[in-house]
Amino acid sequence: MKIHIVKIGGNVIDNTSELNEFLNDFAQLDEPKILVHGGGKIASELSQQMGLSPQFYNGRRITDKQSLDIAIMVYAGLINKTIVAKLQAYSCNAIGLSGADGNLIKAHKRNWPDVDVDFGYVGDVDSVNAKNLQLLLKSGFVPVFCALTHNQQGQLFNTNADTMASEIAGALASENTVKLTYCFEKNGVLTNVEDENSVIPKLTKQNFNALKQQNIIHSGMLPKLENCFAALERNVSQVSIGSPKIIKNNNMACTQII
Amino acid sequence: MKIHIVKIGGNVIDNTSELNEFLNDFAQLDEPKILVHGGGKIASELSQQMGLSPQFYNGRRITDKQSLDIAIMVYAGLINKTIVAKLQAYSCNAIGLSGADGNLIKAHKRNWPDVDVDFGYVGDVDSVNAKNLQLLLKSGFVPVFCALTHNQQGQLFNTNADTMASEIAGALASENTVKLTYCFEKNGVLTNVEDENSVIPKLTKQNFNALKQQNIIHSGMLPKLENCFAALERNVSQVSIGSPKIIKNNNMACTQII
Repeated sequence: MKIHIVKIGGNVIDNTSELNEFLNDFAQLDEPKILVHGGGKIASELSQQMGLSPQFYNGRRITDKQSLDIAIMVYAGLINKTIVAKLQAYSCNAIGLSGADGNLIKAHKRNWPDVDVDFGYVGDVDSVNAKNLQLLLKSGFVPVFCALTHNQQGQLFNTNADTMASEIAGALASENTVKLTYCFEKNGVLTNVEDENSVIPKLTKQNFNALKQQNIIHSGMLPKLENCFAALERNVSQVSIGSPKIIKNNNMACTQII
Repeated sequence: MKIHIVKIGGNVIDNTSELNEFLNDFAQLDEPKILVHGGGKIASELSQQMGLSPQFYNGRRITDKQSLDIAIMVYAGLINKTIVAKLQAYSCNAIGLSGADGNLIKAHKRNWPDVDVDFGYVGDVDSVNAKNLQLLLKSGFVPVFCALTHNQQGQLFNTNADTMASEIAGALASENTVKLTYCFEKNGVLTNVEDENSVIPKLTKQNFNALKQQNIIHSGMLPKLENCFAALERNVSQVSIGSPKIIKNNNMACTQII
């Protein structure tokens, strides 16, 4: 089957009118389709309200037990169910999922041997259960994933939502024609981050490596693009990055990863 | 198909070792099966931690916007996903759900014309989508419901878990042979609440009405038993109330609603 996987980031979730507009557009896409959503600011706000201060190592968040509980509450609870209820209102038969549900996404606790730090309950994806996911799609459900996984031994993990989207796309691509769209706060990959008109229309791995060397692509764009190329290498047929509006408007500028 | 629906209350959820034992037993039940879980103390604890004080009317909780958000976070997030991850560890293919997911349980905002109080975001069930629920069961998933519903217009509601279990059982009973088990902190319906050996083995509607008149059955047992009789009236073939241990141990005392 043809499957469209769309990932939205926290910036869309934090803006109610933008979220509603996006979900209305998403609901109108041809099925089968899958939504993967990030976290937004609510988890940090709740942590603050509870008097907790998030810990970081080189800009990467360390997820202790309390932070994990908050992630589960906010991502799998408040954000996921709010999105599902809204999609249902738009006649889209959404079903909210974490990677533990239906044993859909297995992961292991992050263990980077060259880094002397315990990231806590952060999971790196091992596998996506394409069989169970296809059962849901064939039954007419629209899976809506929050960025949590499990290790099949009872432990949940906080997981990068971009990586989850890439892994889901890659796993489904062996038996399906899969399109993957990353929606974020820019119009695409920009050569000048200040200029929304500097969108690179088509980005190859070679271009990417060159732009990385020149420090034109850096910071958070690097792992995002690594996830895009990882999906392409697993036979995902189309990978795009751009504004949430690109899922409805085919003529809008965005970056195709080729 | 034969379907077993089990409801557990907050007392099981608040006790980790009791919860683990129950989930291990539940995982071993023949499928297809469904779990419905209550809330436990975590939501109240989180409310306190956030400086909110719950409001009641005649012992019934009023769910304002903040209380609803906490219910969504704790019930659909923390409790539901913890249970799902544990069941997956016991090789039970659990899938966590609210009534919004898959449009499974539709409800409307509680409106009791003879009570001059707004209960807030409390939903009374209109219908259970037996078709979508059966699709999940036939695909080998084990639905795990938290006590939230939606109105298909984007609004989630806090809903009584006993009622949800009864409504799910009743809806499935028209095409299936359904068994419904309520697990709670007593060994069954007791004639003397101080004496766990005073279990009534079989309770008819007539007995119930008589015991209600004599004030032997009162308070929280009344709506629970109303839910049991409502399920029976919708052709649920077996309805029992007792300790969580009864799902494994058939010889243990409990109350059969007949």
